[in-house]
Amino acid sequence: MRTSILRLDALAKVTGRARYAADLQFPGMVHVKVLYSTHPHARIRRIATSQARGIPGVLAVLTARDLPGIPGRERERPVLALDRVRYLGEGVAITVAEDEVTAREALARIMVEYDVLPAVFDPEEALKAEAPELHPGGNKLCHFKVRHGDPEAGFAAAEVILERTYRTHRVYHAALEPEAAVAVPGADGTVTIYCPTKSPFNLRRIVAEALALDLNQVRVVETTIGGSFGGKDYDMAVVAARAALAALVTGRPARLVMTREESLKESTKRHPYVLHYKVGARRDGTLVAMKIHGITDAGAYASKTPLVAWRSTVEAAGPYVIPHVHTDIVAAFTNNMPSDALRGFGSPQVNLAVELLMDELAGELGLDPLELRLKNGYREGSEAVTGQSLRDVSLTECLTKVAAATGWQGKRQAYARQEGPRRRGIGLACSFRGSCFGAGGEGLDAAGAMLNVERDGSINVSTGICEVGQGSRSAFARIIAELLGVEAARIHVSPVDSARVVDSGPTVASRGTVVGGHAARLAAEQVRRAMAGVAAAILNVPEDDLEFAGEAVYSRKDPERRLSFRELAGACYSRGVSLYGFGWYKIPDLHWDGEKGQGEAYFSYVYAAAVAEVEVDLETGQVEIINYTAAHDVGNALNPDAVAGQIAGGGAMGIGYALMESAEPCQGKLVNTNFATYLIPTTLDTGRITPLIIEHPDPLGPLGARGLGEPATQIVAPAIINAICQATGRRLYELPATLERVWRAVRERGEE
Amino acid sequence: MRTSILRLDALAKVTGRARYAADLQFPGMVHVKVLYSTHPHARIRRIATSQARGIPGVLAVLTARDLPGIPGRERERPVLALDRVRYLGEGVAITVAEDEVTAREALARIMVEYDVLPAVFDPEEALKAEAPELHPGGNKLCHFKVRHGDPEAGFAAAEVILERTYRTHRVYHAALEPEAAVAVPGADGTVTIYCPTKSPFNLRRIVAEALALDLNQVRVVETTIGGSFGGKDYDMAVVAARAALAALVTGRPARLVMTREESLKESTKRHPYVLHYKVGARRDGTLVAMKIHGITDAGAYASKTPLVAWRSTVEAAGPYVIPHVHTDIVAAFTNNMPSDALRGFGSPQVNLAVELLMDELAGELGLDPLELRLKNGYREGSEAVTGQSLRDVSLTECLTKVAAATGWQGKRQAYARQEGPRRRGIGLACSFRGSCFGAGGEGLDAAGAMLNVERDGSINVSTGICEVGQGSRSAFARIIAELLGVEAARIHVSPVDSARVVDSGPTVASRGTVVGGHAARLAAEQVRRAMAGVAAAILNVPEDDLEFAGEAVYSRKDPERRLSFRELAGACYSRGVSLYGFGWYKIPDLHWDGEKGQGEAYFSYVYAAAVAEVEVDLETGQVEIINYTAAHDVGNALNPDAVAGQIAGGGAMGIGYALMESAEPCQGKLVNTNFATYLIPTTLDTGRITPLIIEHPDPLGPLGARGLGEPATQIVAPAIINAICQATGRRLYELPATLERVWRAVRERGEE
Repeated sequence: MRTSILRLDALAKVTGRARYAADLQFPGMVHVKVLYSTHPHARIRRIATSQARGIPGVLAVLTARDLPGIPGRERERPVLALDRVRYLGEGVAITVAEDEVTAREALARIMVEYDVLPAVFDPEEALKAEAPELHPGGNKLCHFKVRHGDPEAGFAAAEVILERTYRTHRVYHAALEPEAAVAVPGADGTVTIYCPTKSPFNLRRIVAEALALDLNQVRVVETTIGGSFGGKDYDMAVVAARAALAALVTGRPARLVMTREESLKESTKRHPYVLHYKVGARRDGTLVAMKIHGITDAGAYASKTPLVAWRSTVEAAGPYVIPHVHTDIVAAFTNNMPSDALRGFGSPQVNLAVELLMDELAGELGLDPLELRLKNGYREGSEAVTGQSLRDVSLTECLTKVAAATGWQGKRQAYARQEGPRRRGIGLACSFRGSCFGAGGEGLDAAGAMLNVERDGSINVSTGICEVGQGSRSAFARIIAELLGVEAARIHVSPVDSARVVDSGPTVASRGTVVGGHAARLAAEQVRRAMAGVAAAILNVPEDDLEFAGEAVYSRKDPERRLSFRELAGACYSRGVSLYGFGWYKIPDLHWDGEKGQGEAYFSYVYAAAVAEVEVDLETGQVEIINYTAAHDVGNALNPDAVAGQIAGGGAMGIGYALMESAEPCQGKLVNTNFATYLIPTTLDTGRITPLIIEHPDPLGPLGARGLGEPATQIVAPAIINAICQATGRRLYELPATLERVWRAVRERGEE
Repeated sequence: MRTSILRLDALAKVTGRARYAADLQFPGMVHVKVLYSTHPHARIRRIATSQARGIPGVLAVLTARDLPGIPGRERERPVLALDRVRYLGEGVAITVAEDEVTAREALARIMVEYDVLPAVFDPEEALKAEAPELHPGGNKLCHFKVRHGDPEAGFAAAEVILERTYRTHRVYHAALEPEAAVAVPGADGTVTIYCPTKSPFNLRRIVAEALALDLNQVRVVETTIGGSFGGKDYDMAVVAARAALAALVTGRPARLVMTREESLKESTKRHPYVLHYKVGARRDGTLVAMKIHGITDAGAYASKTPLVAWRSTVEAAGPYVIPHVHTDIVAAFTNNMPSDALRGFGSPQVNLAVELLMDELAGELGLDPLELRLKNGYREGSEAVTGQSLRDVSLTECLTKVAAATGWQGKRQAYARQEGPRRRGIGLACSFRGSCFGAGGEGLDAAGAMLNVERDGSINVSTGICEVGQGSRSAFARIIAELLGVEAARIHVSPVDSARVVDSGPTVASRGTVVGGHAARLAAEQVRRAMAGVAAAILNVPEDDLEFAGEAVYSRKDPERRLSFRELAGACYSRGVSLYGFGWYKIPDLHWDGEKGQGEAYFSYVYAAAVAEVEVDLETGQVEIINYTAAHDVGNALNPDAVAGQIAGGGAMGIGYALMESAEPCQGKLVNTNFATYLIPTTLDTGRITPLIIEHPDPLGPLGARGLGEPATQIVAPAIINAICQATGRRLYELPATLERVWRAVRERGEE
């Protein structure tokens, strides 16, 4: 394994010198606040702004009618509601003032007259004919399928059949930094937006369309981000567009920073799912058939729901060979807040369901859960339920390694024999996950990277991939450093600036390192070739004899023939040889039959297995995490410390998902709107997290690397819930496993 | 001729919304002032800063010893003087304070003990053995030669011989914006410098070396510039480095804005020359021999003196076929302020001398000055005095057109017959000038440009060439617009950001449009090829049948087969075809024999001719410019209005050089340190300026374009002085032609 490097952004962050969007100040900056809808579904009859405008210090009060362009595309969340609101927390108007307090005060003076419309909050209800229609075309947003084999025939041949329903809930991205943007008007009608985002190009499009500008008239510059986790896409786009509108109207830099309450109310959440599973197996544990029907709540607008639901469809049957599988996942519009991607997006929900199901099935069959998984899990050459033949499969290794490292067998048996009010349980889960967008991706799955070796051998790099905290800049630096034989610390990776880089899509789906890394690799290889040509001429050796290592370029045969990297960079400059490289990498085209859900869903998959150990107080329902151990095949750990950090961070997030976090609105209204009531885990809640790094290089990954950001999260909850189930002797079917829910399950056992 | 486009920066400038470096504000910004040397030559024994540091609000008082790196390279001006000062106005220390007033007050509390050294202010004196030595290796900075034929044999065959000495003076760049920089420390030990500059990469190197940083740790971002004219290179570098030092020491953004007085005292000036000419001709006007010896004052540091002196050497004999020419130009260090490039750098001085000489020779021979020039001027295939065979020569056309447009013959004769105290004169001059750096260039003569077509067909462009007011961004936009068939307004050219672009050398020598334009062309052609491939596939036509015009791409044979440019950009995006282009253009290698001064001095030359009409008050010496008409071959007027503006601006600058501007120090001390005493022309001083645009495409220029920035200035003074000479009947040999100097010349005539 490689040695770790210091993350390029570490120093700035630990010294507090990193500047976030909310820290930015510009001369003459004005402040923007947002008025939110007070109804989950209503027509806007009239917005009276004159009173608010009259307040001293208020510079403007603006509504959708002040946007030169469109508030939003059809079915997409508008920057500001034009004539209808579809959820509580939808932005209706903005105030722009000399200071934030005045801007906030002015909100109360805006009079909005609504005609209240009937609302629907349940996706199953929303699909009924009599349900109020949110968008033209009806409330069914999408329906994806997998049709593999003949499940009815499979069930007929099965010896054991289980049918279970699982429910997952909404959670919040809970980035410690809320959405914030500063928009600075250019002298020439353009606008520059400084904000944290994972999706600068989507954001740019939305701002440009709202303001009727060309894409090159909107410049988006990435600031230090205080967490994305799949958020800061549409949520940031509306914030950015509102700030930009204020900037263009007032001609002054405009700052809009959400409060925690605003962020919780308005921003997107993880999709809640209801998932019905029916599984059939033989007595020996061989899976023969599965039927899955799921429904998810898209909330009021489309966002990336199709991408999420499609991924769920592909992954719903888990990493298991099953000859007969039908899967259907439907997404419906409701008057809840919009759902959107959140770390794992579509995977955690189905991963939870299928792994809980496997544990229960193992119990029914009298098998060890590990045994059942090893028996049916994907292996090299397995056929996935999408018909794809799988390569580079490391599931078995993940499972056996995590079992060995945790003493699975011994503990599983020991914990089965406990008595008393505090009982331990150990739970297992495994996962697979498609890399990057896959065949269901809406956008182009490609990225660009630019690299320039300066004449002193230091290196400037730009890419279109955002640093959302996952360490992408350090990963790119590592890839380039390795190819050019220099220290990563000699490489400076600039923030994304949409005027300087190419549209590389959003930094989602664990694609940053993979797609951006390939682009960086290609750019580095281009420059390496140029340098090798000059070095070969100077050293009088063939190009293919040259080694780039240790800040030098030398002949492998005669290592005394060498130039320092710096000397070589200077020599290239003097000769007029450009050391600028541009890498463009596009994921290979995938064949996909949408009707049958068969084909190459993703070009590659990543595998993981995790074991959780918990202690449950049966009298209170309290769950304490003792150990969490996760084995992830990361292909090539470009920066092992960062990989371990990802696993720990993903673990903590998964623990929050499993046990405590919940952003479930009631009649569209969220009640827990701050971190006093929306609970996220602290380090005291996570127990001991142990990462097991497995490295099976992915032939399609840059230097063999695989994505990790999302697998690290999706696998946590099923391992924990399965552990709770062992400790309590009760199955749980719904997240989160709160005190009350666990206690109730235990009590039901007592009542049996 | 093309239609004109609105300059991309016009709106921002005329509305006052353009933000200059001095306008920038950052939170926590500190202010920097500079203590200047009080002796033209001295050793620094000690700098006591404790008193200054004790002033409330003073954050730091810093000297060269606080620089982590080197103050400057050998013979180069230091960022701060280390142990010796070589001119009055050299920076010795800086104060950093919460506000500018406090920083200025603190200067007075810094105690510097000097050991005064003998100083030398005359370059001829400086070359003598007994002169104080400024730098190791002596005061002779450089000596360039041309050895062409045998002048002694030529003079022996001549029928008329003239020997004359001409003197040109120092002038100031007089940009309305003085040097200003704001340095912002990065969170990671880097520093970003916002400043106007024509030489961001030279500046970056100087800052990096002074602060012991890698080049990629210093980011230079170009701000709107309030004039360069060849300045804002070393002058900006020292300002930037001082601001950067203050920023890194205090950890806060640091602003350093020079006052006019500081700028006049410290900053570089145009090289003053003393030029001895001896010319021999036959009675019929055929030139046969010339001998030239010039000396120029480099001032205290090297700067670009070698480049300037070399250019003078190549161009000193003017655009004339002369079989026997020897030229020697020497530059010497003195304790005057450093000389550096100023619009034309090295051309205006010799252009003045040779054109005054030609007029006087024509008088001696009884020939019309136009006739003498047409007889000897370069034509297609002429051999230059450097032995180079010339192509694409348009001198004759420039001369005949300007003569025709001004009614030369008639006025010349009419004005010869005047009487009375106010007399008119008409004067002619012509010029040639080597394009770009030429074979004597110190740096790489290459540039890079990046271009990205966004998915909506709008275009982002970056280059390493600065917008110094010459309209380079508009020129690049024009080139790209023409190649891609789009409106220039759809193209956004970003400011130079050294972290994003490649080292493209300084924006000097009228090379911006040529070298940067080629780079932009190559980038556009690359993108065009990519787009053509996709368009051909969609439209089912061969690629070579495609036309890019009118925001569309269509088949020439069947124009109905077409895609809008926007559609095509979107189609390329959807197909994953990158529309990013990188152009790198390097001037062709030139062969040059430095010892003989023979070879290809420049890859191409530009030609011009100008006529000035003046009215002189013989009783006061006052000169009024009536008309100034200049014919310039610009190859291809990419933006005719901008070309006309360049000619007018260059004309005004040349008028200032000819008649009023002077920054001549006395014993190293400049007395006219503001615009009340350093006079520059206003529009009331320039008379009527008429541009004559000639377009002989340069096969080596982008779309045939040629540089204009400098020819527009260099040719003005000789035309004016020759006009004054006709009006007064007296020859002048020294610039500027002030009231006093003209009056004295007239009085000498009266006394004869």
